[in-house]
Amino acid sequence: MQLYSFFNSSTSYRVRIALALKGLDYDYHGINLRSGEQRSAEHRERSPVGGVPVLITDEGQQLTQSLAIIDYLDALQPQPRLLPAEPLARARVLEVAHLIACDIHPINNLRVLGYLQKELGVDAAQKDAWYRHWVAEGLAALEVLLERQGSHPYCFGEQPTLADCCLVPQVANAERMGCDLSGYPKVMAIYRHCLAQQAFQAAAPSRQPDFIA
Amino acid sequence: MQLYSFFNSSTSYRVRIALALKGLDYDYHGINLRSGEQRSAEHRERSPVGGVPVLITDEGQQLTQSLAIIDYLDALQPQPRLLPAEPLARARVLEVAHLIACDIHPINNLRVLGYLQKELGVDAAQKDAWYRHWVAEGLAALEVLLERQGSHPYCFGEQPTLADCCLVPQVANAERMGCDLSGYPKVMAIYRHCLAQQAFQAAAPSRQPDFIA
Repeated sequence: MQLYSFFNSSTSYRVRIALALKGLDYDYHGINLRSGEQRSAEHRERSPVGGVPVLITDEGQQLTQSLAIIDYLDALQPQPRLLPAEPLARARVLEVAHLIACDIHPINNLRVLGYLQKELGVDAAQKDAWYRHWVAEGLAALEVLLERQGSHPYCFGEQPTLADCCLVPQVANAERMGCDLSGYPKVMAIYRHCLAQQAFQAAAPSRQPDFIA
Repeated sequence: MQLYSFFNSSTSYRVRIALALKGLDYDYHGINLRSGEQRSAEHRERSPVGGVPVLITDEGQQLTQSLAIIDYLDALQPQPRLLPAEPLARARVLEVAHLIACDIHPINNLRVLGYLQKELGVDAAQKDAWYRHWVAEGLAALEVLLERQGSHPYCFGEQPTLADCCLVPQVANAERMGCDLSGYPKVMAIYRHCLAQQAFQAAAPSRQPDFIA
């Protein structure tokens, strides 16, 4: 398999975690989001929306959207299973994953922040306030959902799921942007537990071939 | 089952389409997003992020996030199946659903538009340009993905899937906001085909008990 990824892209990071948890090998291709490589004609052929990650399967199929890719990988290599089989347990994992993937991440995406600055003339302080606002709203809700699950090392019990694949990159981004994360002790405990695991470490931005310090 | 919904919310609309396609009965509870009812303590108990839709299952479980809810409904009542079983076919449906649910919808959500106006002082023309920009980027990519599927009445063949549950509310919103949709003939053909079907009609905003003309 081939993965088109950017070291700092949190959606790419989700897929790298899933691949590492499952022990699946792949070739890494860096797409530099800072230089605009994602908008090249060559990359638009892989991803019409001009994004990462893109997975190229062993059969040559191009697949975009991190949650679609992880669902596919879960069928390809079901161990460890990232989406439970039981309908309600599965829905709970998807609920957390989508809270992050729909209600937090897209609003703070690079292209959205770029539009705020370039088209709307938003200054750096306003951009940071925007970023922190959506992180705070989303993580507060995530904290409540996790509290309802009781106390576990991962979001849902003793094994990682799709929810953890989404949580870690989101919190890593929030940390990097200097968000105050002291109000989310459950989220942070899970984050720290995940970061201590080898698969999560192997997927980290600083470990990727296209890492820029 | 109980559904907390707002007639004009496109994420609620997705779930209403799924429920109608599957012929599942439910009690409808309107949550008025215009008056801020979603931010009440009572509703935050149902949805920590303060959103709709919320499904209350027959067992009393509260479930948020439209795609998680539809995945759950697909297990509860597998006919008609909205997510294929075959891994790649399933990934293709999820790819389209997430393009809409992650790359278009969240950026144009009511709370985001509200922040632009209230916190950043964006005027009506700038807000409309913002809305149209993300719709145009997303639908152009959607058109390419659908072209690759060949010609079908629905996004994926002769039967509706989760992709159609997402496409119809997104296009309906874009129409309502006066977006130019002439560049997306595949998207629009599927949209019109869906609107001619009874289940999609029953789920439409104008047919809901909380509809405001």
